[in-house]
Amino acid sequence: MGCHDAAMKNSYARRFLVRPGRKLKLARCPTDVPKLYRNEKDAEEQLARQVARTSELQDVLYASDRHSLLLIFQAMDAAGKDGAIKHVLSGVNPLGCQVSSFKQPSAEELDHDFLWRTTLRLPERGRIGIFNRSYYEEVLVVRVHPQYLAAQRLPEGAVEARDFWEGRLRSIRDHEAHLHRNGTRILKFFLHVSHEEQRKRFLDRIDHPDKNWKFNLGDVEERGYWDDYMRAYEQALAATSTQDSPWYVIPADDKKNARLLISQAMNATLESMGLAYPKLDRKRLAELKAARKLLAD
Amino acid sequence: MGCHDAAMKNSYARRFLVRPGRKLKLARCPTDVPKLYRNEKDAEEQLARQVARTSELQDVLYASDRHSLLLIFQAMDAAGKDGAIKHVLSGVNPLGCQVSSFKQPSAEELDHDFLWRTTLRLPERGRIGIFNRSYYEEVLVVRVHPQYLAAQRLPEGAVEARDFWEGRLRSIRDHEAHLHRNGTRILKFFLHVSHEEQRKRFLDRIDHPDKNWKFNLGDVEERGYWDDYMRAYEQALAATSTQDSPWYVIPADDKKNARLLISQAMNATLESMGLAYPKLDRKRLAELKAARKLLAD
Repeated sequence: MGCHDAAMKNSYARRFLVRPGRKLKLARCPTDVPKLYRNEKDAEEQLARQVARTSELQDVLYASDRHSLLLIFQAMDAAGKDGAIKHVLSGVNPLGCQVSSFKQPSAEELDHDFLWRTTLRLPERGRIGIFNRSYYEEVLVVRVHPQYLAAQRLPEGAVEARDFWEGRLRSIRDHEAHLHRNGTRILKFFLHVSHEEQRKRFLDRIDHPDKNWKFNLGDVEERGYWDDYMRAYEQALAATSTQDSPWYVIPADDKKNARLLISQAMNATLESMGLAYPKLDRKRLAELKAARKLLAD
Repeated sequence: MGCHDAAMKNSYARRFLVRPGRKLKLARCPTDVPKLYRNEKDAEEQLARQVARTSELQDVLYASDRHSLLLIFQAMDAAGKDGAIKHVLSGVNPLGCQVSSFKQPSAEELDHDFLWRTTLRLPERGRIGIFNRSYYEEVLVVRVHPQYLAAQRLPEGAVEARDFWEGRLRSIRDHEAHLHRNGTRILKFFLHVSHEEQRKRFLDRIDHPDKNWKFNLGDVEERGYWDDYMRAYEQALAATSTQDSPWYVIPADDKKNARLLISQAMNATLESMGLAYPKLDRKRLAELKAARKLLAD
């Protein structure tokens, strides 16, 4: 991991960038790091300041209407995706911010290529879009459970081909490169929790009545495939972390710290985009003058 | 106007409900009323408390996954729709809240009936959906400028029929009744500003460089149709304000006051819905017990 964007130089979050074109070993990526905050109150205050900054930047993004920002969140169950989205984005104008959560694909969605359903939910120009899970599921859960491919009715022989998964990863890289060329900045976050931390969080969900409804027996079964998932993540992240659309492996055993890191990375990226309120050209100035006259009558 | 929901009894906002089945005269509805706040600081604090309450209620709405809430905003230009959405909903978890803004319909959208494009954006169960403009444009701007109907290629003779607009209003009533029967609570807000207040706000947009980009010369032209718009609003609101899906005529000359009223009406409605976190049934309890055992090993 290293730094791949000059504008990110001052951000601690950049330490967790996945270096393009290199092998990735998640076992060597920390799930727990020194905290960015001194105590609960400090964490809250820091995040509030960062959210306020996001809010300002989002306002300019919206007004300048030239770029959009897409944040992709992927993680093992109970790693804190929902909470991160809630805390990092609450306070940002909902007019310029849209979250899409992707669950099991519908029959109609399965009748399309695997990038179709998320494409329909891409953020409009000027907006921040958040994908809570994404097309990456197609090289993660589907790679761990390849039997899901049957329902996708791919061309004969496609699934059996040696380079099938490489083809999917290539499709994703090409898709993201296309989006980047057309004004969408993409940031991808893998929330990295330890196997033990997940166990604690599951137990916590079981034992607290107000969290019960979130718990899913299937999640415990998926836990049995932990090593397969880690391998699939390693391959996916290494193959699709690019200079333009990087992956971050965010240490997520501490939720508050993870949120600060995500918020920092997002703001650093928005800062680097050189956003500005639209400038008036001659024609527009004349229009405003004419309107002023009409209204003065 | 009067009270049509027992649960709204304690809300000041209920004064601005449009009484179902009665004629409506907007000239008699105030655009300016005694303020709910003492000073700027008090307004901010009151709104912050209400937003925090919305946030709690939204969390239960999401967890209980049985109802959704749809807020529809309509108004003349510069009445404060965008600002109201921003201030009343910022702070609510973006995972459970989605704003859709409807502008001029696309060619594809025009190839469908007039309820099609908004139907695609209805909030999922458990969410708050916000329509920034809506299908009501079809009985407002389109009624003021009936030449827009040509692009809709309606059946021969339909547009000329004497009950054409009544038919559209009927379609809307039926659509909303259907949504209500299936769990969507609908609240509709008309932000009511005076003709003079709109003039001030337009001038303000022209004169402030950071608001310039929002200004549109076409908006000044539309201002010339003010009386036609008031008539169209009166007919639309009177015909579609029902016990289940009421309209509010929110006095909006004071933006802060308008936001407090909207927030109050929304919270009163959410409170009235009897939302609760899901309860555990026997089967679910057994599941949790089994999961606990698996995780303890």
